[in-house]
Amino acid sequence: MNDQRGHRSLGSSTATSITVYGMDLCADILGSVDFAGMLYLGLLDRVPNAAESRVLNSLLVSLVEHGVTPSTIAARMTYFGAPESLQGAIAAGLLGLGSVLVGTIEGAARMLQEELAGSAATATDEERAARIVGQFRADRRQIPGLGHPIHKPTDPRAARLFEIAAEEQVAGSHCHLMEAVHLAAEAQYGKQMTLNVTGAIGAIASDLGIPWHVARGIGVAARSVGLIAHLRDEQLAPTSNGIWHEVEESQRQAFQE
Amino acid sequence: MNDQRGHRSLGSSTATSITVYGMDLCADILGSVDFAGMLYLGLLDRVPNAAESRVLNSLLVSLVEHGVTPSTIAARMTYFGAPESLQGAIAAGLLGLGSVLVGTIEGAARMLQEELAGSAATATDEERAARIVGQFRADRRQIPGLGHPIHKPTDPRAARLFEIAAEEQVAGSHCHLMEAVHLAAEAQYGKQMTLNVTGAIGAIASDLGIPWHVARGIGVAARSVGLIAHLRDEQLAPTSNGIWHEVEESQRQAFQE
Amino acid sequence: MNDQRGHRSLGSSTATSITVYGMDLCADILGSVDFAGMLYLGLLDRVPNAAESRVLNSLLVSLVEHGVTPSTIAARMTYFGAPESLQGAIAAGLLGLGSVLVGTIEGAARMLQEELAGSAATATDEERAARIVGQFRADRRQIPGLGHPIHKPTDPRAARLFEIAAEEQVAGSHCHLMEAVHLAAEAQYGKQMTLNVTGAIGAIASDLGIPWHVARGIGVAARSVGLIAHLRDEQLAPTSNGIWHEVEESQRQAFQE
Amino acid sequence: MNDQRGHRSLGSSTATSITVYGMDLCADILGSVDFAGMLYLGLLDRVPNAAESRVLNSLLVSLVEHGVTPSTIAARMTYFGAPESLQGAIAAGLLGLGSVLVGTIEGAARMLQEELAGSAATATDEERAARIVGQFRADRRQIPGLGHPIHKPTDPRAARLFEIAAEEQVAGSHCHLMEAVHLAAEAQYGKQMTLNVTGAIGAIASDLGIPWHVARGIGVAARSVGLIAHLRDEQLAPTSNGIWHEVEESQRQAFQE
Repeated sequence: MNDQRGHRSLGSSTATSITVYGMDLCADILGSVDFAGMLYLGLLDRVPNAAESRVLNSLLVSLVEHGVTPSTIAARMTYFGAPESLQGAIAAGLLGLGSVLVGTIEGAARMLQEELAGSAATATDEERAARIVGQFRADRRQIPGLGHPIHKPTDPRAARLFEIAAEEQVAGSHCHLMEAVHLAAEAQYGKQMTLNVTGAIGAIASDLGIPWHVARGIGVAARSVGLIAHLRDEQLAPTSNGIWHEVEESQRQAFQE
Repeated sequence: MNDQRGHRSLGSSTATSITVYGMDLCADILGSVDFAGMLYLGLLDRVPNAAESRVLNSLLVSLVEHGVTPSTIAARMTYFGAPESLQGAIAAGLLGLGSVLVGTIEGAARMLQEELAGSAATATDEERAARIVGQFRADRRQIPGLGHPIHKPTDPRAARLFEIAAEEQVAGSHCHLMEAVHLAAEAQYGKQMTLNVTGAIGAIASDLGIPWHVARGIGVAARSVGLIAHLRDEQLAPTSNGIWHEVEESQRQAFQE
Repeated sequence: MNDQRGHRSLGSSTATSITVYGMDLCADILGSVDFAGMLYLGLLDRVPNAAESRVLNSLLVSLVEHGVTPSTIAARMTYFGAPESLQGAIAAGLLGLGSVLVGTIEGAARMLQEELAGSAATATDEERAARIVGQFRADRRQIPGLGHPIHKPTDPRAARLFEIAAEEQVAGSHCHLMEAVHLAAEAQYGKQMTLNVTGAIGAIASDLGIPWHVARGIGVAARSVGLIAHLRDEQLAPTSNGIWHEVEESQRQAFQE
Repeated sequence: MNDQRGHRSLGSSTATSITVYGMDLCADILGSVDFAGMLYLGLLDRVPNAAESRVLNSLLVSLVEHGVTPSTIAARMTYFGAPESLQGAIAAGLLGLGSVLVGTIEGAARMLQEELAGSAATATDEERAARIVGQFRADRRQIPGLGHPIHKPTDPRAARLFEIAAEEQVAGSHCHLMEAVHLAAEAQYGKQMTLNVTGAIGAIASDLGIPWHVARGIGVAARSVGLIAHLRDEQLAPTSNGIWHEVEESQRQAFQE
């Protein structure tokens, strides 16, 4: 199933069977592996155990829906012009999940994974965290996973996700380092800083073994599910025309002031 | 929670709590509702029971991965040019899930839901199916959910999904009508026609109560998960440059012949 | 240059030359063919003359910018989350150019081209128009290219575009038929109906020889240019965060009423 | 027309007139400003003169079409699954115009604009170029605008674009600095390096006054035009199904080796 590059065949089929991730889709996957399990299997090459499954499900669930966001507005505006293309409206909503919005998951996961892969095994979390925070400060870059405009001093989602990861004994070195980074940042900056949901997801996903290079995908998959409910809502009770004219009107006023 | 249009607030938050689909995200959802359950909750306004959950998970799982497809090629080619934008590559892969590829789920769900909503309650499935097939034939339109280039006479995914829906007692009037349409089509056309996976998904999703207007979303969400694994694969062992030059070369030969 | 299907090689290159649409890009195109001319060349296989060039430029120019639209809102919201991906924000803005917004160009062009290709050469425009309007009424479908919420009784862009097409002697059978459809519709419906800019573009593009199957592309290309100016504006004076919170606030009020 | 931020109203309309970029669309733009001129007007706030127009047209024209590319493959694969959504296929083709493919225009423009805005006015181009190349080497980053796999030692498009910019007296400090960077890089690396088309576009666009922050938009707009011709070609002579099965087959062989 693997080629010379150690590279898997993701899927193939014959007249009577379908093989996905090296398993028989109908005999071994359908009815026993859940939806989140497919992401785990696709990235980590084995079916998750119950603990891993509950944790990955929680990460995905935490990002499905968060009210009105730039992403849901983009999806609804797109649906207005092209209602025949549900996939186009979902894609428009996903395109803004970049460096500012959901990409911080990737930033946090990368920060933790690079530190733990790269530095001396004997370093303590405090030493690692102090070095990381010092480096971000020197570069005048924001530390991914810290800070929130509304949720202070605690992001309730982050707290709950760390709790679940601990209950399931998935929380490990990346979660511990993220917490140490949080403390070090508050100490060095001398102010309260919230450890937010993308920091928690970046850390827990890292402890699950998900490479930082695709960690942003957790947010993309989650929002693809959430956008479907927004578009159903838009079908039942359209908001896009109202949003359009509200924005137009407030622009008009801005130019008259 | 509902406004005058009977329209829900999908999500909102305060400093210490997040409300999603009318429930407390941290207290009532995280750790207990799974990823597929969020799609159910977002569309149908309640948490699925265990049977409904297993069935919806199966529908989603069945579409996550199907090897090399136009969608995965589009995503990989896009990643080649913009590796900094994982969400862009996923969006590109989703944009082709339209009338030809995944949109047939919508077609099948619509056919079944409109028939069962619209016609006399006393009609038998055979009568309904005969009318549907006759109408599609008269309009020279393909019946959604029937036919497959490889899987003959049975699409193993469709068979397994119907089995799970029956085990969980979710299979109902829409599944029965889909099977009747299958028989009627084979009778009227006088040839074997496979009841394929999108036909099964359209029917089972309808029995779960998912409106046909968003049924295509099941495929879009499923493929967003599958595309993440393809892009991880592309990171580890790039294929896009090879595909590019292979296509270029075969175009060059076509023009020389 | 053409293969057996009569199919052109769109472009190819060697170490020292680039061939595009069968011409030497550096020697024969750059500096002499303009940007709109490339669309003409790509679709119609020859460089436009001065009249055709002025007309095609006008069609494109007319759709570049139209203030705040669902498309520009989608692009700005997407840019907010992923400012590193200008192409993603532009793509999000283009995705809504479907059946409701810009796709009516395609509808108008198709209506005219199918009528003139299909019906008896001896029919008068009045006969053709009466049949077309009667058919749309019978099908309860809106006639593409007619009607406008603001521009009444005349869409000034449509009037100016028809004027330019007449000046350049490009206006032909499709423009005449569009005008006849306009008159027939007003007569059959017994009310004023504006011949709008997409109707004018559909008719004039048809007289230029552009197939209806890609006529919507005129709008897509035009808006891709217009969206760049919107995103530059967004860089200089961001509006997306304000739009986000304005929409959030008005949703909150809707649920409290 | 400008608000307090010095921010323009891009467009607005009344029943009888449309204002775009501060001008009357029908009276002052349609029929006199060409398509490329709208990009200039949208970014630089005035109609280009004939020289500027010829140069900007050339930049756009140079990128419209370059044969089979990852972008055109993505667009064709997307069209296969959703032929009802031309805009979706174009958007898919644009999404890969990121850091690797077209984004180097932005990189080159940024390098030149930041150097000329930031450094001492008395520095010579040779001094500036030596510093730039030294910095890129120290950071182990590729210099944007240099290098090409096929076009050696000269990219004929770059040469032709510089020639046009010189003929029209648009070439200025940014073009001169780009040429100095080219020489300094060849000297410091001790090898031939092609000054490629994106380097030329980045330099010339900078001399036109286009901010580097949107310079990538030139490529996005250009390819949106080129993709329309590819999709027309795909309608006339579909290649996507053949590409799909060719890729599938070569993947299958890779796993059997």
